Amino acid sequence: MDTALHFLTAARQCEINELQQLLRTSSFVRTLAEVIHALQKERGLSSIWLASQGSRAAQSLQAQRISSDQAIATVRDMLHTLDVSSLSGGQGARLCSDIAYVLQGIEALPALRQHVTQQRLSVNDSTQAYARLIAGLLAVVFEAADSATYPSISRLLVAMFHFMQGKELAGQERATGAAAFSAGRSDSERQQHWLHLIESQERCFQVFAECAPADLILEWNQLVVMGPDQITIERLRRIGCTAIASAPLPRDLSEVWFEACTHVMDGMHQIESKLAQTLVQECTAHLHSAQQALKQPAQLTQPSTEDVWPEFFAQASRHSWDAQLTTQFKASVLQVVQEQSQRLQTMRTELEAVRQALNERKVVERAKGMLMTQQNLSESQAHKLLRQTAMTQNRRIVDVAQSVLSMAELLNLRET
Amino acid sequence: MDTALHFLTAARQCEINELQQLLRTSSFVRTLAEVIHALQKERGLSSIWLASQGSRAAQSLQAQRISSDQAIATVRDMLHTLDVSSLSGGQGARLCSDIAYVLQGIEALPALRQHVTQQRLSVNDSTQAYARLIAGLLAVVFEAADSATYPSISRLLVAMFHFMQGKELAGQERATGAAAFSAGRSDSERQQHWLHLIESQERCFQVFAECAPADLILEWNQLVVMGPDQITIERLRRIGCTAIASAPLPRDLSEVWFEACTHVMDGMHQIESKLAQTLVQECTAHLHSAQQALKQPAQLTQPSTEDVWPEFFAQASRHSWDAQLTTQFKASVLQVVQEQSQRLQTMRTELEAVRQALNERKVVERAKGMLMTQQNLSESQAHKLLRQTAMTQNRRIVDVAQSVLSMAELLNLRET
Repeated sequence: MDTALHFLTAARQCEINELQQLLRTSSFVRTLAEVIHALQKERGLSSIWLASQGSRAAQSLQAQRISSDQAIATVRDMLHTLDVSSLSGGQGARLCSDIAYVLQGIEALPALRQHVTQQRLSVNDSTQAYARLIAGLLAVVFEAADSATYPSISRLLVAMFHFMQGKELAGQERATGAAAFSAGRSDSERQQHWLHLIESQERCFQVFAECAPADLILEWNQLVVMGPDQITIERLRRIGCTAIASAPLPRDLSEVWFEACTHVMDGMHQIESKLAQTLVQECTAHLHSAQQALKQPAQLTQPSTEDVWPEFFAQASRHSWDAQLTTQFKASVLQVVQEQSQRLQTMRTELEAVRQALNERKVVERAKGMLMTQQNLSESQAHKLLRQTAMTQNRRIVDVAQSVLSMAELLNLRET
Repeated sequence: MDTALHFLTAARQCEINELQQLLRTSSFVRTLAEVIHALQKERGLSSIWLASQGSRAAQSLQAQRISSDQAIATVRDMLHTLDVSSLSGGQGARLCSDIAYVLQGIEALPALRQHVTQQRLSVNDSTQAYARLIAGLLAVVFEAADSATYPSISRLLVAMFHFMQGKELAGQERATGAAAFSAGRSDSERQQHWLHLIESQERCFQVFAECAPADLILEWNQLVVMGPDQITIERLRRIGCTAIASAPLPRDLSEVWFEACTHVMDGMHQIESKLAQTLVQECTAHLHSAQQALKQPAQLTQPSTEDVWPEFFAQASRHSWDAQLTTQFKASVLQVVQEQSQRLQTMRTELEAVRQALNERKVVERAKGMLMTQQNLSESQAHKLLRQTAMTQNRRIVDVAQSVLSMAELLNLRET
């Protein structure tokens, strides 16, 4: 019966379509990583420029803006060739909506730069403005990371997203530290924020270390955990985070700090690129085997009706987990259907485990966002509130966040 | 900047694509409901025929087979026109795989019927065989129910799936009761299974009652909870489930039982059809408003770069839940982007709550399936084991089921 075969083939074609989409997504994520890296550097240099009242980093800022523009141009080109007609549903809609947001941010970038050049905004506002644009870019990566149904690919995307998120927090830390040293002083609010950034990035890198391939984790350890710049960074963190408000900070440390951080972040960027490469390889390998599998059913023979009957009705339930189904009709259509079905179910179970990390982040971020708006808190205050509540109630932070969101729904904050 | 507008439009087009797909899905589900209804009746009549050793239901069985074949022909036609190229990813693959399985089952149906006609299999085996085919059809409905990102549509699909599942359990109960009365006796194993079927269908209808529109719940109450047939059904349930093994059951009750059950199930089928109709209406209404929204952005004006800047960087975070963002640039692209983004996030939160019911069923069913294979248990034994464990450990049944699945993964039952 060719119709069952037809749908069996279609099932495999669905997987192939997804893998081809994932390949495109992987190279898209890679390009986004480039832009984010450039904007992070531009943000750090802008901080030094502003905090030193225009006495430092003028030339390197100018050069970095040109590099950023080149990276942005690449993203624009990529977006032009993106086939939006292949997207569908809530996820496609969120992805497009996120891209539209980012494009508006890019549109606003020249005005932001002008304000920086003319020193018409504070270091903090500049850092926040860049952070908002980068957050928009990361939201695009997040939507992409949420799209894979292959556990091994999904795991790499989760690793990638958390790595990029951790790197962004490291970038914010670089800007914060650079501002403190360039200004020659710090205060307790900035120190609190600084400590929050350190803690948050460690959580992200922890998820990375749980999901990434072993060789990249090793590289990560050599770069950050045991790297030579880490000694400088930890020393300057101590100086910056413990200095009392009235005591002056040595301004010269701003370049030392910026350089050490930049060196580590450049290293992170290399790990990021390798992770993106691994992602492409993984997609390609799956695509290859899916295409091989697609050729199989053509060789199958369909048993006669009289034979299908005991095979379909007389054996163990299809939802059986026993891979060694004893049946006399080897390599029949039904058997392939059942194997396929089992494999898809197993993939779903594994995927749910992998996605846990993404879902938890999603819930925590949304709860934080709501607390920020409703209670008028800063991001670190919102995070602190969630964490303290979790500790007091002896619950996980994600459960507290979930309660916050459910409560909001009860309070009728939702739209129709 | 037309590119942001382009992606804003694309985001809405994604929603429209999904809604059009959901419209097709809704009519597909409706057709599947027809086939299932026909096969359920055929199964019940087959039970009477087999249990009465060919002395009852011969003619009505013959007629019902013809009706079933007509319904099957409609599904086949529908499958021929299904555009598989529009499906993608794990979900599309699972849907196609489920359809391929069902088509194999349909292929085996003539042989099953021949065995029934020649009385070459037991009542129980016949019931199980039909149940397996119907389970395959329900799996297709389940995959469809899992696909909507609109909370209101998803809610209706969840109601639909659980209603169909509950009706199938009612159908199995009809066949079980019919067999007991036709045979003129019952035993404790059959009675246990019978009670399990009653309990399970009540759980399904409870989910239906939580998700369905008010008018259908009312109709449901009038039909089943307070319906005239319900008195007969409850009386015969009592007789059938409490009779001791040695005592004879009045054989004449088999027709009374079958008729009362059939009457209720025909009523259920009507509710099912109305629910499918509501689903179509809901999809159409959403589609209409999405198409209206698509026309909007064309009227928007893009503010100059100098204006986008404060709008993008100087206002509250985009993840704000406050619908009344105070900004002086009304109806700008950015504002629409932000509203869109907010709406999509809210939808996602609501959707996750609605899907809870589907996810829990998924986990419980898979855990049961595994226990059945691994521990060689019947479906009701597996369910009982899960329930007892939940009671003993004071946990929810879904949490116990999750533990069973996680354990299986640890024991390396998964594939690559």
